[in-house]
Amino acid sequence: MEIYLDNSATTMAFKEVTDLVSKVMYVDYGNPSSMHLKGVQAEKYVRDAKETLAKLLKVQEKEIFFTSGGTESDNWALMGAAQANSRAGRHLITTKIEHPAILQTMEYLESIGYEVTYLPVDENGVVRLDALEDAVRKDTILVSIMQVNNEVGALQPIEEAGKIIEKKNPRTLFHVDAVQGFGKIKLYPKRCNVDMLSVSGHKIHGPKGTGFLYIDDKVKIKPIVFGGGQQKGMRSGTENVPGIAGLSLAAKMMYDGMDEDVRRLFALKTYFQKELAKMDRVIVNGPLYGEGAPHIVSASFTGVRSEVLLHALEEKGIYVSAGSACASNKHTVSATLSAMGIAQELLDCTLRFSFSIFTTREELDYTLQCLGEILPMLRRFVRR
Amino acid sequence: MEIYLDNSATTMAFKEVTDLVSKVMYVDYGNPSSMHLKGVQAEKYVRDAKETLAKLLKVQEKEIFFTSGGTESDNWALMGAAQANSRAGRHLITTKIEHPAILQTMEYLESIGYEVTYLPVDENGVVRLDALEDAVRKDTILVSIMQVNNEVGALQPIEEAGKIIEKKNPRTLFHVDAVQGFGKIKLYPKRCNVDMLSVSGHKIHGPKGTGFLYIDDKVKIKPIVFGGGQQKGMRSGTENVPGIAGLSLAAKMMYDGMDEDVRRLFALKTYFQKELAKMDRVIVNGPLYGEGAPHIVSASFTGVRSEVLLHALEEKGIYVSAGSACASNKHTVSATLSAMGIAQELLDCTLRFSFSIFTTREELDYTLQCLGEILPMLRRFVRR
Repeated sequence: MEIYLDNSATTMAFKEVTDLVSKVMYVDYGNPSSMHLKGVQAEKYVRDAKETLAKLLKVQEKEIFFTSGGTESDNWALMGAAQANSRAGRHLITTKIEHPAILQTMEYLESIGYEVTYLPVDENGVVRLDALEDAVRKDTILVSIMQVNNEVGALQPIEEAGKIIEKKNPRTLFHVDAVQGFGKIKLYPKRCNVDMLSVSGHKIHGPKGTGFLYIDDKVKIKPIVFGGGQQKGMRSGTENVPGIAGLSLAAKMMYDGMDEDVRRLFALKTYFQKELAKMDRVIVNGPLYGEGAPHIVSASFTGVRSEVLLHALEEKGIYVSAGSACASNKHTVSATLSAMGIAQELLDCTLRFSFSIFTTREELDYTLQCLGEILPMLRRFVRR
Repeated sequence: MEIYLDNSATTMAFKEVTDLVSKVMYVDYGNPSSMHLKGVQAEKYVRDAKETLAKLLKVQEKEIFFTSGGTESDNWALMGAAQANSRAGRHLITTKIEHPAILQTMEYLESIGYEVTYLPVDENGVVRLDALEDAVRKDTILVSIMQVNNEVGALQPIEEAGKIIEKKNPRTLFHVDAVQGFGKIKLYPKRCNVDMLSVSGHKIHGPKGTGFLYIDDKVKIKPIVFGGGQQKGMRSGTENVPGIAGLSLAAKMMYDGMDEDVRRLFALKTYFQKELAKMDRVIVNGPLYGEGAPHIVSASFTGVRSEVLLHALEEKGIYVSAGSACASNKHTVSATLSAMGIAQELLDCTLRFSFSIFTTREELDYTLQCLGEILPMLRRFVRR
């Protein structure tokens, strides 16, 4: 038995996506820059992918730029915007609970002379909008807020944030890291005053090493990768055509039937959170039930180190995450949980369960049953 | 009939590579940063790939860093080295015939205060070593020279260049863009004083969107992508595990039997060049026969615009390139051919034929036959 509840770390690719990637690698393998038929065919995959993704987001095709993933998209949005707008100001705003791809890039920008304000969040991990309103200044060139927090599933008030930014400083750009939200919770950039939006392929059953950055046509940012001038000179390098085709198909498949999938996921989440809360000394973190994202559950297991519990579950074939798996192998205390004010002694006892559309009630029941057996055992034998 | 002679633009993936990529996407889809079995399995693909590639280059595993392709590798080598060493100097050296991923990045570095010397080449497209010797100064922090020129197949004297650099300034870093040479002509960085080496997957029947940068363990360069700290903090972002596995398998397959393949390719190249040279007003550019790279033939067809000839061949199912396909759809005069001193009226009449290990004598015969039919016809009807 293999129960994969680590879908916020990465997902199994859809079978259809895998097959398409294979076909493009082996049959339609041309370089979109080539002038002959083989190149034209390859270019069509890229154009079709832009069309598909633009439709899903209700934006223009020319506003979609393919990257090597969410991390590159985030880096580009921040560095490209900072470089292009440094004359207007050097102040940036983000939150304390962003993904490292944002936080580390902000840190780099601080090291080269930019000033960054980190907004606090409430006890559910939702950014404080009053703090945002206070923070936006005349010299604020960019605000970056994630759509869904990757550790506890908190859904950020993007639309309201967009309004506040527009009101306080219409020239401030608004970037949204939608890596955990895209394909699960609809967000239309044009309706939310969002100028840039980062998406990753491998979180939505698409290929690893793929992603895109939506950039509003009116927004000017600088490229950060230089070369052959692909993608209108904005992102050089031979397009990863199989990956781009796979990413776009995965996105389309996520959007087809999304409402029904999300309803089902919320039911699973509600059930799982309620059952966890019934357990002895288990505390559910972040937004409950129908709130937040439908696919992420965070829980703290008092007195049990998350790493120990993770490996005990692994022995039962259940795969979960301790904190965020994106922080490569580093055992660091979660910035998100700290920012939410979770008690110090619980930080190290927290697991993340993240569902996909393939997750079933039976899998969750088995997980709950295993937790029910493992927890008392570990608490008895494992001294902290 | 489909005759693909544009392998320097991109290649068909090996069937075995395609199958492996599928398997890793659909079965072994874990995130290497995850602590559970699924993550450990994924991490093993990455570790094995490093081991394979390190062995092929006779370097250490920890000196291999995966990127999204040749363009990112080139950008990283130049920008990372420039940033890390700006205190030692701000002078860089490259050649006039590099790929745009080098030339455009150099241009960017010039725009932020670095000084770049562009070395001339001889009539065969080989860099002038006397010019290199003159150019290296006390404040030269980096020299970047490609292994094989992508337009005419000129093989650069990397070993000799390495010696000159070492002699003139032992602190100067030496980067080699091996995108067109890797898998065709062996190059061992440690023997050639090469500190960094860029490789792309899709030029060797591997996946698009993959590549690596070899960085000598003693060399310090800065990362240019920030985030979760993957790859020892040098290149953040979830590793493209299927792509990395596919890249490493493709490299291994290229090295297995490389000597025999290269012998066969040189025979094909010699044959093709000789037959082209027999044709009326056809001039073969670059290194002849056993010189240069075994897989690239450049020829100028006096009085016939390359674009017209390219499309006439396309109608016969033969796919070739006008100049370099990497310069995305831009119809620019080739910098390489200009630097080699090719007559102005020939620049626009030049095609590149690039072979793969799947190219056959029959395919070349058919191509020659078609050229023999098309050229007189075009010359009669097409006024320039």
